Amino acid sequence: MAKSAKASPRVDIATRKQAFVRDEIESSAAGLFAERGFRAVTMDDIADSLGYTKSVLYYYFKNKNEILWLIFSRSLDIYASAIDAILRKGHPHDIAMREMIREHAMCVMRNKNYTTIYNREESELTDQQQRLLNKRRRDYDQKFEMVYKSGIEKGMFRDIPPHVAISGILGMCNWLHVWYDERGPLSAEQIAGYYATLLSSGYMTG
Amino acid sequence: MAKSAKASPRVDIATRKQAFVRDEIESSAAGLFAERGFRAVTMDDIADSLGYTKSVLYYYFKNKNEILWLIFSRSLDIYASAIDAILRKGHPHDIAMREMIREHAMCVMRNKNYTTIYNREESELTDQQQRLLNKRRRDYDQKFEMVYKSGIEKGMFRDIPPHVAISGILGMCNWLHVWYDERGPLSAEQIAGYYATLLSSGYMTG
Repeated sequence: MAKSAKASPRVDIATRKQAFVRDEIESSAAGLFAERGFRAVTMDDIADSLGYTKSVLYYYFKNKNEILWLIFSRSLDIYASAIDAILRKGHPHDIAMREMIREHAMCVMRNKNYTTIYNREESELTDQQQRLLNKRRRDYDQKFEMVYKSGIEKGMFRDIPPHVAISGILGMCNWLHVWYDERGPLSAEQIAGYYATLLSSGYMTG
Repeated sequence: MAKSAKASPRVDIATRKQAFVRDEIESSAAGLFAERGFRAVTMDDIADSLGYTKSVLYYYFKNKNEILWLIFSRSLDIYASAIDAILRKGHPHDIAMREMIREHAMCVMRNKNYTTIYNREESELTDQQQRLLNKRRRDYDQKFEMVYKSGIEKGMFRDIPPHVAISGILGMCNWLHVWYDERGPLSAEQIAGYYATLLSSGYMTG
Protein backbone atom coordinates (compact mmCIF):
# COMPACT_ATOMS: atom_id res chain seq x y z
CA MET A 1 0.00 0.00 0.00
CA ALA A 2 1.29 3.44 -0.89
CA LYS A 3 1.82 5.64 2.10
CA SER A 4 2.78 9.30 2.31
CA ALA A 5 6.41 9.63 3.36
CA LYS A 6 5.57 12.74 5.35
CA ALA A 7 2.57 11.60 7.41
CA SER A 8 3.31 9.67 10.56
CA PRO A 9 1.15 6.57 11.14
CA ARG A 10 -0.53 8.37 14.03
CA VAL A 11 -1.58 11.35 11.89
CA ASP A 12 -2.67 8.95 9.21
CA ILE A 13 -4.97 7.10 11.60
CA ALA A 14 -6.39 10.36 12.97
CA THR A 15 -7.12 11.64 9.46
CA ARG A 16 -8.73 8.38 8.44
CA LYS A 17 -10.81 8.33 11.60
CA GLN A 18 -12.00 11.88 10.93
CA ALA A 19 -12.98 10.98 7.38
CA PHE A 20 -14.75 7.90 8.70
CA VAL A 21 -16.76 9.84 11.29
CA ARG A 22 -17.63 12.48 8.73
CA ASP A 23 -18.93 9.80 6.36
CA GLU A 24 -20.80 8.17 9.21
CA ILE A 25 -22.54 11.42 10.13
CA GLU A 26 -23.34 12.14 6.49
CA SER A 27 -24.78 8.69 5.93
CA SER A 28 -26.84 8.68 9.10
CA ALA A 29 -28.16 12.18 8.39
CA ALA A 30 -29.08 11.08 4.86
CA GLY A 31 -31.13 8.20 6.27
CA LEU A 32 -32.98 10.53 8.64
CA PHE A 33 -33.51 13.30 6.06
CA ALA A 34 -34.83 10.78 3.52
CA GLU A 35 -37.19 9.22 6.03
CA ARG A 36 -38.56 12.27 7.82
CA GLY A 37 -37.67 15.26 5.64
CA PHE A 38 -34.80 17.70 6.22
CA ARG A 39 -36.78 20.17 8.33
CA ALA A 40 -38.13 17.55 10.69
CA VAL A 41 -34.64 16.35 11.66
CA THR A 42 -32.54 18.21 14.25
CA MET A 43 -28.79 18.07 14.89
CA ASP A 44 -29.77 16.32 18.15
CA ASP A 45 -31.57 13.59 16.20
CA ILE A 46 -28.50 12.98 14.06
CA ALA A 47 -26.21 12.88 17.10
CA ASP A 48 -28.60 10.54 18.95
CA SER A 49 -28.80 8.15 16.02
CA LEU A 50 -25.03 7.64 16.28
CA GLY A 51 -24.68 7.82 20.05
CA TYR A 52 -22.61 11.01 19.77
CA THR A 53 -23.02 14.25 21.66
CA LYS A 54 -24.06 17.26 19.64
CA SER A 55 -20.62 18.82 20.12
CA VAL A 56 -19.06 15.97 18.14
CA LEU A 57 -21.38 16.83 15.25
CA TYR A 58 -20.49 20.51 15.42
CA TYR A 59 -16.81 19.62 15.32
CA TYR A 60 -17.39 18.16 11.85
CA PHE A 61 -20.20 20.30 10.48
CA LYS A 62 -21.03 23.96 11.03
CA ASN A 63 -24.75 23.28 10.73
CA LYS A 64 -27.42 21.07 9.17
CA ASN A 65 -27.17 22.90 5.86
CA GLU A 66 -23.51 21.93 5.53
CA ILE A 67 -24.46 18.26 5.85
CA LEU A 68 -27.24 18.72 3.29
CA TRP A 69 -24.93 20.37 0.80
CA LEU A 70 -22.39 17.58 1.24
CA ILE A 71 -25.17 15.11 0.36
CA PHE A 72 -26.03 17.09 -2.77
CA SER A 73 -22.37 17.45 -3.81
CA ARG A 74 -21.74 13.77 -3.24
CA SER A 75 -24.77 12.85 -5.37
CA LEU A 76 -23.59 15.07 -8.19
CA ASP A 77 -20.09 13.55 -7.99
CA ILE A 78 -21.39 9.97 -8.06
CA TYR A 79 -23.61 10.56 -11.09
CA ALA A 80 -21.11 12.60 -13.07
CA SER A 81 -18.20 10.21 -12.57
CA ALA A 82 -20.31 7.18 -13.57
CA ILE A 83 -21.38 8.84 -16.84
CA ASP A 84 -17.92 10.22 -17.60
CA ALA A 85 -16.49 6.71 -17.28
CA ILE A 86 -18.94 5.50 -19.95
CA LEU A 87 -18.25 8.42 -22.27
CA ARG A 88 -14.53 7.77 -22.10
CA LYS A 89 -15.10 4.33 -23.61
CA GLY A 90 -16.10 5.89 -26.94
CA HIS A 91 -18.95 3.46 -27.64
CA PRO A 92 -21.30 3.96 -30.64
CA HIS A 93 -24.31 6.13 -29.71
CA ASP A 94 -26.81 3.34 -29.20
CA ILE A 95 -24.57 1.41 -26.82
CA ALA A 96 -23.43 4.57 -25.03
CA MET A 97 -27.03 5.71 -24.45
CA ARG A 98 -28.12 2.31 -23.21
CA GLU A 99 -25.18 2.12 -20.80
CA MET A 100 -25.80 5.67 -19.59
CA ILE A 101 -29.45 4.86 -18.87
CA ARG A 102 -28.58 1.65 -17.04
CA GLU A 103 -25.91 3.40 -15.01
CA HIS A 104 -28.14 6.35 -14.14
CA ALA A 105 -30.89 3.98 -13.01
CA MET A 106 -28.41 1.94 -10.99
CA CYS A 107 -27.10 5.11 -9.31
CA VAL A 108 -30.65 6.05 -8.28
CA MET A 109 -31.29 2.59 -6.81
CA ARG A 110 -27.90 2.22 -5.14
CA ASN A 111 -28.16 5.63 -3.48
CA LYS A 112 -31.86 5.79 -2.76
CA ASN A 113 -31.64 8.00 0.35
CA TYR A 114 -29.40 10.43 -1.47
CA THR A 115 -31.66 10.58 -4.51
CA THR A 116 -34.73 11.11 -2.34
CA ILE A 117 -33.05 14.07 -0.66
CA TYR A 118 -31.63 15.36 -3.93
CA ASN A 119 -35.09 15.35 -5.45
CA ARG A 120 -37.00 16.79 -2.53
CA GLU A 121 -34.85 19.19 -0.51
CA GLU A 122 -33.51 21.58 -3.11
CA SER A 123 -35.52 24.46 -1.63
CA GLU A 124 -33.56 24.06 1.62
CA LEU A 125 -30.28 25.02 -0.08
CA THR A 126 -28.96 28.57 -0.13
CA ASP A 127 -29.35 30.61 -3.33
CA GLN A 128 -25.67 30.18 -4.11
CA GLN A 129 -25.86 26.42 -3.60
CA GLN A 130 -28.95 26.24 -5.81
CA ARG A 131 -27.15 28.11 -8.58
CA LEU A 132 -24.19 25.74 -8.37
CA LEU A 133 -26.52 22.73 -8.29
CA ASN A 134 -28.39 23.93 -11.36
CA LYS A 135 -25.18 24.49 -13.25
CA ARG A 136 -23.86 21.03 -12.47
CA ARG A 137 -27.22 19.46 -13.26
CA ARG A 138 -27.32 21.21 -16.63
CA ASP A 139 -23.79 19.94 -17.36
CA TYR A 140 -24.91 16.42 -16.51
CA ASP A 141 -28.08 16.56 -18.61
CA GLN A 142 -26.13 18.00 -21.52
CA LYS A 143 -23.89 14.96 -21.66
CA PHE A 144 -27.00 12.89 -22.33
CA GLU A 145 -28.42 15.44 -24.73
CA MET A 146 -25.24 15.56 -26.80
CA VAL A 147 -25.23 11.79 -27.24
CA TYR A 148 -28.93 11.92 -28.14
CA LYS A 149 -28.40 14.74 -30.63
CA SER A 150 -25.58 12.89 -32.37
CA GLY A 151 -27.77 9.79 -32.45
CA ILE A 152 -30.51 11.77 -34.25
CA GLU A 153 -27.98 13.12 -36.74
CA LYS A 154 -26.86 9.59 -37.51
CA GLY A 155 -30.48 8.53 -37.99
CA MET A 156 -30.26 6.10 -35.08
CA PHE A 157 -32.46 7.96 -32.61
CA ARG A 158 -36.00 9.24 -32.98
CA ASP A 159 -36.23 12.92 -33.86
CA ILE A 160 -37.63 14.30 -30.60
CA PRO A 161 -36.17 17.52 -29.13
CA PRO A 162 -33.19 16.14 -27.18
CA HIS A 163 -34.04 17.93 -23.95
CA VAL A 164 -37.56 16.47 -24.04
CA ALA A 165 -36.30 12.95 -24.73
CA ILE A 166 -33.61 13.18 -22.05
CA SER A 167 -35.93 14.68 -19.44
CA GLY A 168 -38.28 11.77 -20.09
CA ILE A 169 -35.49 9.19 -19.94
CA LEU A 170 -33.91 10.57 -16.77
CA GLY A 171 -37.35 11.19 -15.26
CA MET A 172 -38.29 7.53 -15.60
CA CYS A 173 -35.05 6.53 -13.89
CA ASN A 174 -35.22 9.21 -11.20
CA TRP A 175 -38.68 8.01 -10.24
CA LEU A 176 -37.11 4.77 -9.05
CA HIS A 177 -36.25 6.52 -5.82
CA VAL A 178 -39.97 6.57 -5.05
CA TRP A 179 -40.86 2.95 -5.70
CA TYR A 180 -37.70 0.83 -5.86
CA ASP A 181 -37.52 -1.54 -2.90
CA GLU A 182 -34.23 -3.40 -2.44
CA ARG A 183 -36.15 -6.19 -0.69
CA GLY A 184 -38.37 -6.67 -3.80
CA PRO A 185 -38.20 -9.74 -6.05
CA LEU A 186 -36.30 -8.01 -8.88
CA SER A 187 -32.67 -6.94 -8.60
CA ALA A 188 -31.57 -3.40 -9.43
CA GLU A 189 -29.76 -4.81 -12.49
CA GLN A 190 -32.95 -6.45 -13.78
CA ILE A 191 -34.99 -3.29 -13.35
CA ALA A 192 -32.31 -1.16 -15.00
CA GLY A 193 -32.30 -3.62 -17.90
CA TYR A 194 -36.10 -3.49 -18.30
CA TYR A 195 -36.02 0.31 -18.24
CA ALA A 196 -33.28 0.48 -20.86
CA THR A 197 -35.29 -1.82 -23.12
CA LEU A 198 -38.55 0.07 -22.53
CA LEU A 199 -36.86 3.37 -23.32
CA SER A 200 -34.91 2.24 -26.35
CA SER A 201 -37.60 0.08 -27.97
CA GLY A 202 -40.91 1.06 -26.35
CA TYR A 203 -43.68 -1.05 -24.88
CA MET A 204 -45.25 -1.91 -28.25
CA THR A 205 -44.01 -5.12 -29.80
CA GLY A 206 -44.59 -4.27 -33.42
CA MET B 1 -80.54 26.09 -14.88
CA ALA B 2 -81.62 23.45 -12.37
CA LYS B 3 -82.12 24.81 -8.89
CA SER B 4 -83.01 23.02 -5.66
CA ALA B 5 -86.64 23.72 -4.72
CA LYS B 6 -85.72 23.81 -1.04
CA ALA B 7 -82.74 26.13 -1.01
CA SER B 8 -83.46 29.85 -1.04
CA PRO B 9 -81.32 31.92 -3.41
CA ARG B 10 -79.66 33.50 -0.35
CA VAL B 11 -78.60 30.11 1.07
CA ASP B 12 -77.48 29.14 -2.38
CA ILE B 13 -75.23 32.18 -2.67
CA ALA B 14 -73.80 31.62 0.82
CA THR B 15 -73.00 28.00 0.03
CA ARG B 16 -71.42 28.91 -3.25
CA LYS B 17 -69.39 31.62 -1.60
CA GLN B 18 -68.15 29.19 1.04
CA ALA B 19 -67.14 26.69 -1.62
CA PHE B 20 -65.38 29.49 -3.48
CA VAL B 21 -63.41 30.65 -0.44
CA ARG B 22 -62.50 27.06 0.42
CA ASP B 23 -61.18 26.55 -3.10
CA GLU B 24 -59.34 29.84 -2.95
CA ILE B 25 -57.60 28.88 0.31
CA GLU B 26 -56.77 25.43 -1.03
CA SER B 27 -55.32 26.84 -4.23
CA SER B 28 -53.28 29.53 -2.52
CA ALA B 29 -51.97 27.06 0.06
CA ALA B 30 -51.01 24.69 -2.77
CA GLY B 31 -48.97 27.44 -4.41
CA LEU B 32 -47.15 28.20 -1.15
CA PHE B 33 -46.60 24.54 -0.20
CA ALA B 34 -45.24 23.76 -3.67
CA GLU B 35 -42.91 26.74 -3.62
CA ARG B 36 -41.56 26.60 -0.07
CA GLY B 37 -42.45 23.15 1.26
CA PHE B 38 -45.32 22.29 3.60
CA ARG B 39 -43.39 22.75 6.84
CA ALA B 40 -42.05 26.16 5.93
CA VAL B 41 -45.55 27.61 5.40
CA THR B 42 -47.67 28.77 8.34
CA MET B 43 -51.43 29.34 8.54
CA ASP B 44 -50.48 33.04 8.83
CA ASP B 45 -48.64 32.88 5.49
CA ILE B 46 -51.69 31.38 3.80
CA ALA B 47 -54.03 33.98 5.34
CA ASP B 48 -51.63 36.81 4.39
CA SER B 49 -51.40 35.64 0.80
CA LEU B 50 -55.17 36.10 0.48
CA GLY B 51 -55.56 39.17 2.66
CA TYR B 52 -57.64 37.20 5.18
CA THR B 53 -57.24 37.04 8.92
CA LYS B 54 -56.18 33.72 10.36
CA SER B 55 -59.64 33.27 11.91
CA VAL B 56 -61.18 33.11 8.43
CA LEU B 57 -58.84 30.24 7.62
CA TYR B 58 -59.75 28.40 10.80
CA TYR B 59 -63.42 28.77 9.96
CA TYR B 60 -62.80 26.64 6.87
CA PHE B 61 -59.96 24.35 7.96
CA LYS B 62 -59.16 22.85 11.34
CA ASN B 63 -55.43 23.01 10.65
CA LYS B 64 -52.76 22.92 7.97
CA ASN B 65 -52.96 19.14 7.71
CA GLU B 66 -56.62 19.35 6.68
CA ILE B 67 -55.66 21.60 3.77
CA LEU B 68 -52.84 19.24 2.81
CA TRP B 69 -55.14 16.23 2.85
CA LEU B 70 -57.67 18.08 0.69
CA ILE B 71 -54.87 18.69 -1.85
CA PHE B 72 -53.98 14.99 -1.86
CA SER B 73 -57.62 13.90 -2.15
CA ARG B 74 -58.24 16.36 -4.95
CA SER B 75 -55.18 15.09 -6.84
CA LEU B 76 -56.35 11.50 -6.51
CA ASP B 77 -59.84 12.48 -7.72
CA ILE B 78 -58.52 14.36 -10.75
CA TYR B 79 -56.26 11.51 -11.87
CA ALA B 80 -58.76 8.73 -11.25
CA SER B 81 -61.65 10.42 -13.01
CA ALA B 82 -59.52 11.22 -16.09
CA ILE B 83 -58.42 7.60 -16.44
CA ASP B 84 -61.89 6.18 -15.73
CA ALA B 85 -63.28 8.35 -18.53
CA ILE B 86 -60.81 6.78 -20.97
CA LEU B 87 -61.48 3.23 -19.77
CA ARG B 88 -65.22 3.71 -20.27
CA LYS B 89 -64.61 4.29 -23.98
CA GLY B 90 -63.56 0.65 -24.43
CA HIS B 91 -60.69 1.39 -26.84
CA PRO B 92 -58.31 -1.36 -28.00
CA HIS B 93 -55.34 -1.74 -25.64
CA ASP B 94 -52.82 0.20 -27.68
CA ILE B 95 -55.07 3.23 -28.06
CA ALA B 96 -56.24 3.03 -24.43
CA MET B 97 -52.66 2.92 -23.12
CA ARG B 98 -51.58 5.80 -25.31
CA GLU B 99 -54.54 7.92 -24.19
CA MET B 100 -53.95 7.04 -20.55
CA ILE B 101 -50.30 8.08 -20.80
CA ARG B 102 -51.18 11.35 -22.51
CA GLU B 103 -53.88 12.11 -19.97
CA HIS B 104 -51.67 11.26 -17.00
CA ALA B 105 -48.90 13.50 -18.36
CA MET B 106 -51.42 16.29 -19.01
CA CYS B 107 -52.77 15.99 -15.45
CA VAL B 108 -49.23 16.38 -14.06
CA MET B 109 -48.59 19.47 -16.18
CA ARG B 110 -52.00 21.05 -15.63
CA ASN B 111 -51.78 20.62 -11.86
CA LYS B 112 -48.08 21.15 -11.30
CA ASN B 113 -48.36 22.57 -7.77
CA TYR B 114 -50.60 19.71 -6.72
CA THR B 115 -48.29 17.09 -8.22
CA THR B 116 -45.26 18.65 -6.55
CA ILE B 117 -46.99 18.46 -3.19
CA TYR B 118 -48.37 15.00 -3.89
CA ASN B 119 -44.88 13.75 -4.67
CA ARG B 120 -43.02 15.45 -1.87
CA GLU B 121 -45.18 15.82 1.21
CA GLU B 122 -46.51 12.33 1.80
CA SER B 123 -44.54 12.04 5.06
CA GLU B 124 -46.55 14.98 6.44
CA LEU B 125 -49.81 13.02 6.32
CA THR B 126 -51.13 11.05 9.27
CA ASP B 127 -50.70 7.26 9.25
CA GLN B 128 -54.37 6.80 8.43
CA GLN B 129 -54.17 9.26 5.55
CA GLN B 130 -51.06 7.54 4.23
CA ARG B 131 -52.84 4.18 4.30
CA LEU B 132 -55.79 5.60 2.39
CA LEU B 133 -53.45 7.32 -0.07
CA ASN B 134 -51.55 4.10 -0.71
CA LYS B 135 -54.75 2.17 -1.29
CA ARG B 136 -56.05 4.70 -3.79
CA ARG B 137 -52.67 4.93 -5.51
CA ARG B 138 -52.55 1.14 -5.86
CA ASP B 139 -56.06 1.17 -7.36
CA TYR B 140 -54.94 3.79 -9.85
CA ASP B 141 -51.74 1.98 -10.84
CA GLN B 142 -53.68 -1.26 -11.21
CA LYS B 143 -55.89 0.25 -13.87
CA PHE B 144 -52.76 0.84 -15.94
CA GLU B 145 -51.31 -2.56 -15.07
CA MET B 146 -54.48 -4.38 -16.12
CA VAL B 147 -54.46 -2.72 -19.53
CA TYR B 148 -50.76 -3.52 -19.87
CA LYS B 149 -51.28 -7.15 -18.82
CA SER B 150 -54.06 -7.64 -21.37
CA GLY B 151 -51.84 -6.03 -23.99
CA ILE B 152 -49.10 -8.57 -23.27
CA GLU B 153 -51.61 -11.41 -23.51
CA LYS B 154 -52.70 -10.17 -26.91
CA GLY B 155 -49.06 -9.98 -28.01
CA MET B 156 -49.32 -6.21 -28.49
CA PHE B 157 -47.14 -5.13 -25.56
CA ARG B 158 -43.62 -6.12 -24.64
CA ASP B 159 -43.40 -8.82 -22.01
CA ILE B 160 -42.05 -6.83 -19.09
CA PRO B 161 -43.54 -7.33 -15.59
CA PRO B 162 -46.54 -4.96 -15.73
CA HIS B 163 -45.73 -3.20 -12.47
CA VAL B 164 -42.20 -2.47 -13.71
CA ALA B 165 -43.43 -1.16 -17.07
CA ILE B 166 -46.15 0.96 -15.45
CA SER B 167 -43.87 2.35 -12.76
CA GLY B 168 -41.52 3.39 -15.53
CA ILE B 169 -44.28 4.89 -17.65
CA LEU B 170 -45.89 6.81 -14.80
CA GLY B 171 -42.48 7.76 -13.43
CA MET B 172 -41.52 9.45 -16.68
CA CYS B 173 -44.77 11.43 -16.63
CA ASN B 174 -44.63 12.25 -12.92
CA TRP B 175 -41.19 13.73 -13.38
CA LEU B 176 -42.76 16.45 -15.49
CA HIS B 177 -43.67 18.23 -12.27
CA VAL B 178 -39.94 18.88 -11.79
CA TRP B 179 -39.03 20.28 -15.16
CA TYR B 180 -42.19 21.27 -17.07
CA ASP B 181 -42.38 25.03 -17.46
CA GLU B 182 -45.64 26.41 -18.81
CA ARG B 183 -43.73 29.39 -20.21
CA GLY B 184 -41.49 27.06 -22.25
CA PRO B 185 -41.61 26.83 -26.06
CA LEU B 186 -43.49 23.50 -26.16
CA SER B 187 -47.13 23.12 -25.16
CA ALA B 188 -48.23 20.51 -22.64
CA GLU B 189 -50.00 18.67 -25.50
CA GLN B 190 -46.79 18.51 -27.53
CA ILE B 191 -44.76 17.18 -24.61
CA ALA B 192 -47.44 14.61 -23.73
CA GLY B 193 -47.41 13.50 -27.38
CA TYR B 194 -43.61 13.12 -27.44
CA TYR B 195 -43.71 11.12 -24.23
CA ALA B 196 -46.42 8.81 -25.51
CA THR B 197 -44.35 8.15 -28.66
CA LEU B 198 -41.12 7.65 -26.71
CA LEU B 199 -42.83 5.19 -24.36
CA SER B 200 -44.74 3.24 -26.99
CA SER B 201 -42.02 3.06 -29.65
CA GLY B 202 -38.73 3.91 -27.90
CA TYR B 203 -35.97 6.31 -28.84
CA MET B 204 -34.37 3.95 -31.37
CA THR B 205 -35.56 4.39 -34.93
CA GLY B 206 -34.95 0.88 -36.18
